[in-house]
Amino acid sequence: MRFELTKEFLENIRLAIQNNDLEWIDKNVLELHYVDIAEILDELQNEEAKFIYFRLEEEVQADVLMELEEEVRDRFIKSLSTKEIAEQLENLDSDDAADILYELSDNEIHEVISQMEDDEAADDIVDLLNYDEDTAGGLMQKEFLYVNVDWTVEEALTEIREQAKDVEKVYTIYVVDDINKLMGVLSLKSLFFSDSHLIIKDLYQNKNIISVKVTEEQEEVMRLFDKYGLVSIPVLDYQNKLVGRITIDDVVDIIREEADRDFQLATGITEKVEDNASVFKITRARLPWLIIGMLGGTLGAKVISSFEGNISIVPALAFFIPMITAMGGNVGVQSSAIVVQSLAKGNQFKSIFSKLGKELLVGLLNGIICSSLIFGIASVFGTLNLGVVVSISLFVVILFASVMGTLIPLILDKYDIDPALATGPFITTLNDVLGLFIYFTVAMLIFT
Amino acid sequence: MRFELTKEFLENIRLAIQNNDLEWIDKNVLELHYVDIAEILDELQNEEAKFIYFRLEEEVQADVLMELEEEVRDRFIKSLSTKEIAEQLENLDSDDAADILYELSDNEIHEVISQMEDDEAADDIVDLLNYDEDTAGGLMQKEFLYVNVDWTVEEALTEIREQAKDVEKVYTIYVVDDINKLMGVLSLKSLFFSDSHLIIKDLYQNKNIISVKVTEEQEEVMRLFDKYGLVSIPVLDYQNKLVGRITIDDVVDIIREEADRDFQLATGITEKVEDNASVFKITRARLPWLIIGMLGGTLGAKVISSFEGNISIVPALAFFIPMITAMGGNVGVQSSAIVVQSLAKGNQFKSIFSKLGKELLVGLLNGIICSSLIFGIASVFGTLNLGVVVSISLFVVILFASVMGTLIPLILDKYDIDPALATGPFITTLNDVLGLFIYFTVAMLIFT
Repeated sequence: MRFELTKEFLENIRLAIQNNDLEWIDKNVLELHYVDIAEILDELQNEEAKFIYFRLEEEVQADVLMELEEEVRDRFIKSLSTKEIAEQLENLDSDDAADILYELSDNEIHEVISQMEDDEAADDIVDLLNYDEDTAGGLMQKEFLYVNVDWTVEEALTEIREQAKDVEKVYTIYVVDDINKLMGVLSLKSLFFSDSHLIIKDLYQNKNIISVKVTEEQEEVMRLFDKYGLVSIPVLDYQNKLVGRITIDDVVDIIREEADRDFQLATGITEKVEDNASVFKITRARLPWLIIGMLGGTLGAKVISSFEGNISIVPALAFFIPMITAMGGNVGVQSSAIVVQSLAKGNQFKSIFSKLGKELLVGLLNGIICSSLIFGIASVFGTLNLGVVVSISLFVVILFASVMGTLIPLILDKYDIDPALATGPFITTLNDVLGLFIYFTVAMLIFT
Repeated sequence: MRFELTKEFLENIRLAIQNNDLEWIDKNVLELHYVDIAEILDELQNEEAKFIYFRLEEEVQADVLMELEEEVRDRFIKSLSTKEIAEQLENLDSDDAADILYELSDNEIHEVISQMEDDEAADDIVDLLNYDEDTAGGLMQKEFLYVNVDWTVEEALTEIREQAKDVEKVYTIYVVDDINKLMGVLSLKSLFFSDSHLIIKDLYQNKNIISVKVTEEQEEVMRLFDKYGLVSIPVLDYQNKLVGRITIDDVVDIIREEADRDFQLATGITEKVEDNASVFKITRARLPWLIIGMLGGTLGAKVISSFEGNISIVPALAFFIPMITAMGGNVGVQSSAIVVQSLAKGNQFKSIFSKLGKELLVGLLNGIICSSLIFGIASVFGTLNLGVVVSISLFVVILFASVMGTLIPLILDKYDIDPALATGPFITTLNDVLGLFIYFTVAMLIFT
């Protein structure tokens, strides 16, 4: 029963638009969930999308607009007049409206704002534009429910009824004093089910209220949502006055984005790229690490060339080069992944040394097991001496890689560089060079 | 002003427990946010934790219990008598209670349930135990707010007031008919602010209600929350009767867990491991890929050994082995990462061929740029011939790696194997062997 966008359905929509078959469109498209409508508009030409969009109810328009893919939405907005944009903004939450304006030029913003009819909404949006996009101020919306601590339940209910017209999702009612300072929160339950003569002061909760300042960085906001399992958080200015709230739906999007970015960084992709990015953009996002990897490879070549004599005498030495570099890379990536994940969760390491000690123990165990196995394989493959060289150097490489994999993300983090950079190409490249050096040094010691 | 757990504070708590300094504990610990209390208990010995836990209010106990780290909670629960466990379960949401019982033996579950005083709660929990943990039934809780479609607003308000005692977080009120079939949803706003004589039938919303069946898999539940930006979802049985709901706080935890698991799989860690897992457990989680990597390395050694003659003639060929394998690995991981992310988001690929075509174009561009660079480096390093060999084979390796990186996760996904397995060690190992083969084949063609 769930909607699934098919090629045929899309063709039918296009046909209906061409033939101006309003009846078909109203019946088959306008009744869908706004998320599904947005999915359809994402696939249409801009003019086709506009045709459908302007047949939607105003409320649905706002929802659809915020669901469009970013690129589609930018294109769509840019094809509207400033008057039309102003009309669309009136239906949006202030944070969404601000997000749309961020994409316009200062001149356009000015024109759009001046054409908005709801002055209060316009003021809210202008206010939000002052905050950095990556701070609590940039994430918050100005629509929230609040009551004064001195009101009766009856007064509060009347007020909340009025406020609720502008607030789409009700999570918490904030309690403020006369100068708008946040005093605590009131649950919907206690408001709706309390005697109407009671005073809010006697009903609200003021213990352990988690809030953020407008200037708080996005990462700290995420950490608080995560740690305290929040669904919304009040945002305060420097005088502790309540100025907005951030809700979980915005936060979920950011959690996903951050996880995606860490994953991409760790796999050697330096810029955030969407599925549908251009070939040029994808190439540009990937090239930096490939070139660094290549320079690492060149350094590796330099290391091997300085042991050319050994290879001439024992050509079988060359056989195990890929294994040594691969194992150094694998172990390094495994170690760094764990550190990166812990750091992403905001874990502070009580002691680097205990972390390092544990990784060394794991490395020791893995090293012993892998070295014993490879000793057998290499001895059969070549000579007993080769077996000794390969297994000893593999053991040392695994230990070194464990240490590097643990230390490097911690060091990067210390210098405020994203530690996710360390997992993947960086660790791999470093361990390649290091591994080769260890391998040939051990070989030289044993074969001469 | 936010709580930050320090070593000193922990020492003070331990001291206070030893000295039975209840005043200090009540003042400094019991007033904290339950998440912070859980963080403290995570660090204490079991007996110490129990001492604090049983001084908390019942409501707070339930919250703290669910916030403990899994291992700590299991240890804690196992140190309680079945009578004590039964008492704790009475305060929990049914889904949380079921999660705790999952960890016990059948006998213990039986004993605990039989000692619960609230029979209705016990029934709910027993019912939940029937569902697979990874399905909607295993995720849902039995506590939710509902009204009958034929009730008046006044009747509904009275009923909801009663129900709300058991429901901690109010998101949506579900509307059902006489045999409990889900008809739609009612917003809190419209219930609380409508005339008390109106009938729910005339107020509720029945369009585009997103719901799931009890047997729906966890991934599909996640996809729906993500796609439709839900905060809760109703769960239906086979007759479309409403049996539970899943809320966003449970889903956020799972989103994070899945992102973590993908990240770990992609970095060669096969089991989920916590920060504080034992050395033995960590080793076991990492060893499988290391051994596969080693076998891959052995295969690589086999490839090189079959070209031993070429190395004897041109030892400089060995120099560039690490570069060729590293580049194959890097490109493969980059390509696969993008496919894995798209698949994780539930994107269906309209056409494998268009995806592959794009990756090939990106590979072509990266290949041309990297090959040109390495041609210069290798020519200076060795001979012009070496430059030709290295640059041609690097170009071919990059193209092959792009194709492999794209195809393998798609193929794994087709056969219901987690495609995240493909990013990382698997692709790297495969591309190592393939790259070596390409490199030496090109070398043979050019040098002979």
